[in-house]
Amino acid sequence: MTRDPRYDILFTPLKIGPVTTKNRFFQVPHCTGMGYIRPRMLASMREVKAEGGWGVICTEYNSIHPSSDDLRHVSASLWNDSDIRAHRLMTDKIHAHGALAGAELWYGGARSANMMTREVALDLDSMPNSVGHPFQTRAMDKTDIRNLRRWHRKAAIRARDAGFDVVYVYATHGYLLANFLDPARNTRSDEYGGVMENRVRLVRELIEETKDAVGDKCAVAVRFAADEQVGEDGIPITGERRDMFEMLAPLPDLWDINIADYGVEMGVSRFTKEGALEPYMGFVKSITDKPVVTVGRFTSPDTMVSQLKRGVTDLIGAARPSIADPFLPAKIEAGDLGAIRECIGCNVCYSGDSLGVPIRCTQNPTMGEEWRKGWHPEKIDPKGSDTRVLVVGAGPAGMEAARALGQRGYEVMLAEATRELGGRVRREATLPGLSEYIRVKDYREQQMLKMPNVEVFRESQMSAQDVHAVEADHVVIATGAHWRKERFNGNRYVSVTPDGADAHVLTPDDIMDGRMPDGPTLVYDEDGYYLGGVIAEKLRAAGLDVTYATPADVVSQWAENTSERWRVRSHLMKLGIEIELSKSLTEFDGKTARLACEYGGTVTDLKVRTVVMVTQRKTNDTLYNDLITGAGGDRAKLPFTLSRVGDCDAPAIIAAAVYAGHRYARELDAPIDSDEPLRHDRVDVGETPEGSYLMGRT
Amino acid sequence: MTRDPRYDILFTPLKIGPVTTKNRFFQVPHCTGMGYIRPRMLASMREVKAEGGWGVICTEYNSIHPSSDDLRHVSASLWNDSDIRAHRLMTDKIHAHGALAGAELWYGGARSANMMTREVALDLDSMPNSVGHPFQTRAMDKTDIRNLRRWHRKAAIRARDAGFDVVYVYATHGYLLANFLDPARNTRSDEYGGVMENRVRLVRELIEETKDAVGDKCAVAVRFAADEQVGEDGIPITGERRDMFEMLAPLPDLWDINIADYGVEMGVSRFTKEGALEPYMGFVKSITDKPVVTVGRFTSPDTMVSQLKRGVTDLIGAARPSIADPFLPAKIEAGDLGAIRECIGCNVCYSGDSLGVPIRCTQNPTMGEEWRKGWHPEKIDPKGSDTRVLVVGAGPAGMEAARALGQRGYEVMLAEATRELGGRVRREATLPGLSEYIRVKDYREQQMLKMPNVEVFRESQMSAQDVHAVEADHVVIATGAHWRKERFNGNRYVSVTPDGADAHVLTPDDIMDGRMPDGPTLVYDEDGYYLGGVIAEKLRAAGLDVTYATPADVVSQWAENTSERWRVRSHLMKLGIEIELSKSLTEFDGKTARLACEYGGTVTDLKVRTVVMVTQRKTNDTLYNDLITGAGGDRAKLPFTLSRVGDCDAPAIIAAAVYAGHRYARELDAPIDSDEPLRHDRVDVGETPEGSYLMGRT
Repeated sequence: MTRDPRYDILFTPLKIGPVTTKNRFFQVPHCTGMGYIRPRMLASMREVKAEGGWGVICTEYNSIHPSSDDLRHVSASLWNDSDIRAHRLMTDKIHAHGALAGAELWYGGARSANMMTREVALDLDSMPNSVGHPFQTRAMDKTDIRNLRRWHRKAAIRARDAGFDVVYVYATHGYLLANFLDPARNTRSDEYGGVMENRVRLVRELIEETKDAVGDKCAVAVRFAADEQVGEDGIPITGERRDMFEMLAPLPDLWDINIADYGVEMGVSRFTKEGALEPYMGFVKSITDKPVVTVGRFTSPDTMVSQLKRGVTDLIGAARPSIADPFLPAKIEAGDLGAIRECIGCNVCYSGDSLGVPIRCTQNPTMGEEWRKGWHPEKIDPKGSDTRVLVVGAGPAGMEAARALGQRGYEVMLAEATRELGGRVRREATLPGLSEYIRVKDYREQQMLKMPNVEVFRESQMSAQDVHAVEADHVVIATGAHWRKERFNGNRYVSVTPDGADAHVLTPDDIMDGRMPDGPTLVYDEDGYYLGGVIAEKLRAAGLDVTYATPADVVSQWAENTSERWRVRSHLMKLGIEIELSKSLTEFDGKTARLACEYGGTVTDLKVRTVVMVTQRKTNDTLYNDLITGAGGDRAKLPFTLSRVGDCDAPAIIAAAVYAGHRYARELDAPIDSDEPLRHDRVDVGETPEGSYLMGRT
Repeated sequence: MTRDPRYDILFTPLKIGPVTTKNRFFQVPHCTGMGYIRPRMLASMREVKAEGGWGVICTEYNSIHPSSDDLRHVSASLWNDSDIRAHRLMTDKIHAHGALAGAELWYGGARSANMMTREVALDLDSMPNSVGHPFQTRAMDKTDIRNLRRWHRKAAIRARDAGFDVVYVYATHGYLLANFLDPARNTRSDEYGGVMENRVRLVRELIEETKDAVGDKCAVAVRFAADEQVGEDGIPITGERRDMFEMLAPLPDLWDINIADYGVEMGVSRFTKEGALEPYMGFVKSITDKPVVTVGRFTSPDTMVSQLKRGVTDLIGAARPSIADPFLPAKIEAGDLGAIRECIGCNVCYSGDSLGVPIRCTQNPTMGEEWRKGWHPEKIDPKGSDTRVLVVGAGPAGMEAARALGQRGYEVMLAEATRELGGRVRREATLPGLSEYIRVKDYREQQMLKMPNVEVFRESQMSAQDVHAVEADHVVIATGAHWRKERFNGNRYVSVTPDGADAHVLTPDDIMDGRMPDGPTLVYDEDGYYLGGVIAEKLRAAGLDVTYATPADVVSQWAENTSERWRVRSHLMKLGIEIELSKSLTEFDGKTARLACEYGGTVTDLKVRTVVMVTQRKTNDTLYNDLITGAGGDRAKLPFTLSRVGDCDAPAIIAAAVYAGHRYARELDAPIDSDEPLRHDRVDVGETPEGSYLMGRT
């Protein structure tokens, strides 16, 4: 296959100040949960993107000084020479593939409580920490501003010395510089506050000083929000922002444009679709002739080309699409569009940063595993034996196992009980807002269609006898899980209908099967991620009176980690769904649902006709157990190897199922030592007994 | 001074299996936010405790396998040889001081979602993750149990090879082994479930296998909850737990006894006082003749002696008291009881683990700084010059600065505007439950009394002129902060009484000054830590109708990190305080407080007579600013060096103020390079280019 000429424009070089990118694919800075804590994981992960064709690859945010410390959220840093060595690992790898490397310089201000370093955080005023830690900032005085500028300059020089080609001034996302720009926040009475000229002063100084320090070798980029804010109706409110941009426009070598509402900028696909920033930032190129990059979760090359041709942007910025498919540019170049693993917009990637652990991706199970498991998103070892593998169940785990085994060259039989592939992603994709989840199935189905060694058997419910009849060498069970009618009371699973009102109790599986409740309905959420809210929305859209209750203090609590929790609750409330928090469902008799307060047991009775339990799942392990039992309880006596992966092993998020399926495929005939299953990017005191470095005493 | 003979019993050796502790001071395992991520910080911190006289010093929990991974909560690990090297750093230092080192082996089960390692978590059933992550465990089959036992054995051997003298089987705190023991949870139908003999099987096997593997060199300890659970009335419910203990009693070399209710075991001083475990575990020594250790936030040597003499325990276990004062044993031995820095029970230490950052302590500002700043809790460099220092303000920052400067030998004048020392801790200690906070003042006041070079001036409000008149060489302003009447609306501070009802608006300072509201009162909490709840409690105790409102989704949200949030809310509800969550106070006219929902703005009007604003603080910086202004805005023109520390610099938690005061004292005449203010325990790729180790492929 070769490139479609209409995508040629994506592969034209572009000069950015003193450097030139080979194409228009620009991986904007994005967090990874790795940063300075896991430098080897990080370098290998970014390298894979360079290999996959991205023209520019940026780091996550780099703290310029210990007084900007975001832990538990793991940032990169440019504090001293140790950082130069760490980053050099990455930039060397990126350069080896002909790409440019970019470093985003960051100072958190009131967003960082500095709980690792214990330095006082600085911001324009004595402000409360903006994420709720009981640490106010110090209002920066002249000395503080002078120090900040020196730290920024030193960090820029370190970035250059580490081999970066692009250095960012980061003036958005509610961090220090954004606060200085903001007319609502910046109430300073000195030359850094008041009129717009004053409020842009610090950003202007940093741009000029960065250019002065490293501008001969590095392009200086500015990350900037194009719009003021978004009104209730979703329409941007225009204010001075355009004038501010005009004022700064000539200064840097590159503009990285985003928008004020982070919930839209990196919204989940449930609420935000491809190219969502254009209405807010479409004016930018009419003001500057400097190169512009912007994002929009772009996965379609046609959309990308349209963005360039219509003059919206010069470079196709991407974070999530580059995570889901590091080889997106290479696949467009090769004309192999069907091979693109499109981002589904679930934001599981972001949960790594939220939780202080390495990034993972639903679509790309190799994300974060490049160094520690030696996994590559496109390459995989050829099969280790001429054997046949039966995969039972074509959900995310089974499909990924079959696809990856097929790629390795095994003879694969994928047996699916229903007519359709996809398992839970096919079912969930029918729910409100989740349509893009079908991409998990689509990518794998497309890939398997091209593999003569993979056979798919639909409507093939397998019994233990059927499995034996296949005479496979390896059998992997991926039969998923189903939602329970019980709840977990902290100790064990219990029924909430002791007097038998089971007919009035449904599960998400019932709803996805089209079995809708009648009458007022309680959606009871012990799962705590997205599904409870989505089910409530579906029922409400069908005209039902819906109450959403959960023992948690918040709606969809885990969705905090994917940056959608606030949006979910607001959305449910707007739809007219009643919310009951911090309450456990203890009993339901078909008429009254009894809720007990988590803080003392006070009872609330709710008149409802139906309860939908979104609680825990039961593994579909009958087949697995039948096979074991058939072998007298000893797996080793079976005439094939037997494994189980994904939700039928341990119900979890879709990303975990895809990962488990992929891992099975990787490890077949290449078993790892399960006692030591991964490389570990950690301090090894044996090799550096006296510490990485000593920060200096004068 | 010499030891009081009545404390001799605390200094008698005790044989624990194959090893002998020199005394009865036993630092039980406690988390630190360091673990395998920050091994050098950790080793030096533990070393200081050995130097301070603790007979046994244990690590935090050590994961025995990557399928037990608690990040963001940082555990130690015993996964491979790299861990042996990391731990050896610590054990060598501990042994050098004649103490024993203990390692707690840990498997999380349903408590760990393994988001760093991505391994499937194992537990006795397919259980939901117990802290809300959407990852269920796999129900352990025979192979899994065999694997677990092998991992445990290998970890024990690594612990021995790393030099540990005590190895723990960790069978409590809701982790895997606790679940196996629990009759309510363990519903397995195999030989590991059902009757008690079956439920203890795994723990018994692990004890026996650990003894077999390392019992010749190491004592094998078991951490075990003595009681079943605590009833509503606070009285322990007796059940089979005593029988279970009898069954296991002869097996290990040491029993480390705690209780089922973690909220009591490590309760904040607001709810739990010294020696709180005795009613639950008092029976233990009547059953076993093996040595017993238990905790109780013991800081009084008399209480300790009483515990030993009355046969409650053989060893005085401590986590928090050893953090607040690593030299507690040495001070008792030296007969210098007044020098003990007693734990105040604020649990700020625990917030490090909660947040994934290193431990800090309110009383001990050197905690966690032993390696990275070279700070010692008892030793400090002598003064760098024969100069005089004026400290203005005797709150936690000012007192600690004066004390530590005094210890260095400087001539110190501490000027306090009021009659009493202590600042905010003296005021807060008058509030319900916070009486132990006064220890922050008491320790420092006691110490300064012994220092002829420290003069304390009470009722000495200082003007700029007064400061100049002192003719000090160095002036440090520690004048604290006061609570605002405004709130922060996300952008700036705004009044909630635009029409002037200020007379009906109080702050925590008013309450602490004894100015009480009349009529129904709203306590409005934007601070989000403990104070809002405490103020509400005080008002309710005075007989007022009280509503507590906060824009957060939860009561006292940051108190989640100190493990008291659930207790606070239950407590407030029991007292009859109404709770309004997710609501901002937008307006108050003296009769009606208007609250706006954070998710869409729906308004709730509340009829109240008074509002107490617990929002943000304003620095008391008049003196500091007057001094600068008096020098024409240029600090360098003053005839003394001028600094500010603590809340008057940046309002934060008490621990931050003590730290800032201490840091000032350390750095006087010994300035650090503020561009690189700390040593940093991190991966340095320059020195170990290929990674710490490669976990193996078979």
